[in-house]
Amino acid sequence: MVNGASEFDEGSAVTARVGEPGVYDSALGEGWRIGGGVNGGVLLAIAGRALATELGTADGDRPAHPDPLAISAYYLTPGVPGPATVRTSVVRRGRAVSTGQASLLQDDGAGGEVERVRFLATYGDLESVDGDITTSAAPPDLPPPDRCISAAQAPPDFLKHASLLQRLDMRLDPATTGWAVGEPSGNGVIRGWLRMADGREPDPLLLLLAVDALPPVAFELGLPGWTPTLELTAHVRARPAPGWLRVSLTNRTLAGGFLEEDAEVWDSEGRLVALSRQLARASAPAPDRR
Amino acid sequence: MVNGASEFDEGSAVTARVGEPGVYDSALGEGWRIGGGVNGGVLLAIAGRALATELGTADGDRPAHPDPLAISAYYLTPGVPGPATVRTSVVRRGRAVSTGQASLLQDDGAGGEVERVRFLATYGDLESVDGDITTSAAPPDLPPPDRCISAAQAPPDFLKHASLLQRLDMRLDPATTGWAVGEPSGNGVIRGWLRMADGREPDPLLLLLAVDALPPVAFELGLPGWTPTLELTAHVRARPAPGWLRVSLTNRTLAGGFLEEDAEVWDSEGRLVALSRQLARASAPAPDRR
Repeated sequence: MVNGASEFDEGSAVTARVGEPGVYDSALGEGWRIGGGVNGGVLLAIAGRALATELGTADGDRPAHPDPLAISAYYLTPGVPGPATVRTSVVRRGRAVSTGQASLLQDDGAGGEVERVRFLATYGDLESVDGDITTSAAPPDLPPPDRCISAAQAPPDFLKHASLLQRLDMRLDPATTGWAVGEPSGNGVIRGWLRMADGREPDPLLLLLAVDALPPVAFELGLPGWTPTLELTAHVRARPAPGWLRVSLTNRTLAGGFLEEDAEVWDSEGRLVALSRQLARASAPAPDRR
Repeated sequence: MVNGASEFDEGSAVTARVGEPGVYDSALGEGWRIGGGVNGGVLLAIAGRALATELGTADGDRPAHPDPLAISAYYLTPGVPGPATVRTSVVRRGRAVSTGQASLLQDDGAGGEVERVRFLATYGDLESVDGDITTSAAPPDLPPPDRCISAAQAPPDFLKHASLLQRLDMRLDPATTGWAVGEPSGNGVIRGWLRMADGREPDPLLLLLAVDALPPVAFELGLPGWTPTLELTAHVRARPAPGWLRVSLTNRTLAGGFLEEDAEVWDSEGRLVALSRQLARASAPAPDRR
């Protein structure tokens, strides 16, 4: 990233619509596709940015709450490249935190709108968090990035519908990439290093992408199909330091065709900066590519 | 429980309001108080029951989805004993799952309503889950219930605002109850056995209570104060077998005054039947007892 906006900031940009308070115009980019749709983390970041604009401004005696402490996304239909609308509403403005709701919608091709994702979120100010952390959590032990496996080495079949990977510099721990050569470990763990290909440094909004950017942990369970997310909730716990992120995905239980994927994101100073859990459906048929 | 409805079914009952589709009348019971308000798990169960009514009925070619697969609660203001209204709306009816939204409101004492909790949830049918589980998760190793510590043994100061505990038969692992005698381990783990005092057997709705029924894990971190939940998301993964539940709470990171509490609930057959994570605020001042 030399000049202008980063790919992430462009890909998650929102513009307040004149005359319609709380409504934002956005676009889902071709460059953020993965599997059968647009990456769910980008959708989370788009809504997260719209809500940051709504809640990140002080209102009377209520201070600004610019950072997503907790954000839940209920995925309804797969996002497709093209224009999108984010409709936000403030649920409650508080002194310590504020809560908002958002819907991400797209044209349904028949003159109406179809909702892609419904969100709820509570925002606060992570400025106060610096240096005030007690934890028993230790970052994952990974080989150095140059001894990990770059996404660029993924099989062409996988890369075909994965323009997202061109935005990312992702280096996966070779101990967790058996799936890529048809030998999934069955362990339910995928972990690796992550940064943006254009050098854009992490911040709370980027962490919303990071929690859903790695290949689905279902791959390492031997489920190579489409695993659509039903629900994902992310907690941002601290503003990340510049540099590489470490991301670990784990799964423990697959039941009735549903599995959870837990993500943990660590910054370059070894701090646990984000946690997420999603419920996904295993090996569903790929959606229509509308 | 000999005759009639169980305490849980009474405490989480909802009645469809005539002439107002999607609106339910309920009541927050005096018998479900804990700390500064009504237990958040009961509020979750009340909304969960209203949504189960809305989504649990087949609609044209869309089958019934009676079970909460994922439900997120954003707590806004503390619930107090008294009448409550649940307003639901269907976000999307699908073939495999359906999504709904709900608000739990109470009278604000000035002729208006104050919202206590906003919910999003995706429902499905857990009937299909039986026997179809692969997992690497093992239930917590607990001493037998008669060698654990009953909530009835808790200090009187704690029991004073804890009518909830009379509804529960809770037996905590003595290794995780140092907080009760002023010697918290600092480990960030509380675990124990749980069943309803009146013998009501667990089902998916009861699991929504179970994930938020134990003492807050913050106690074992040496934070004895009020730890209000900002957000809690629960995943119900299977219908529980009758008998004791085992519940384990863990925390790993306290940052900026916020901590996560992860709950896992296991049924008497050793299956992981529910997972939840909440974000809570540590040692906030107790709210007014309105």
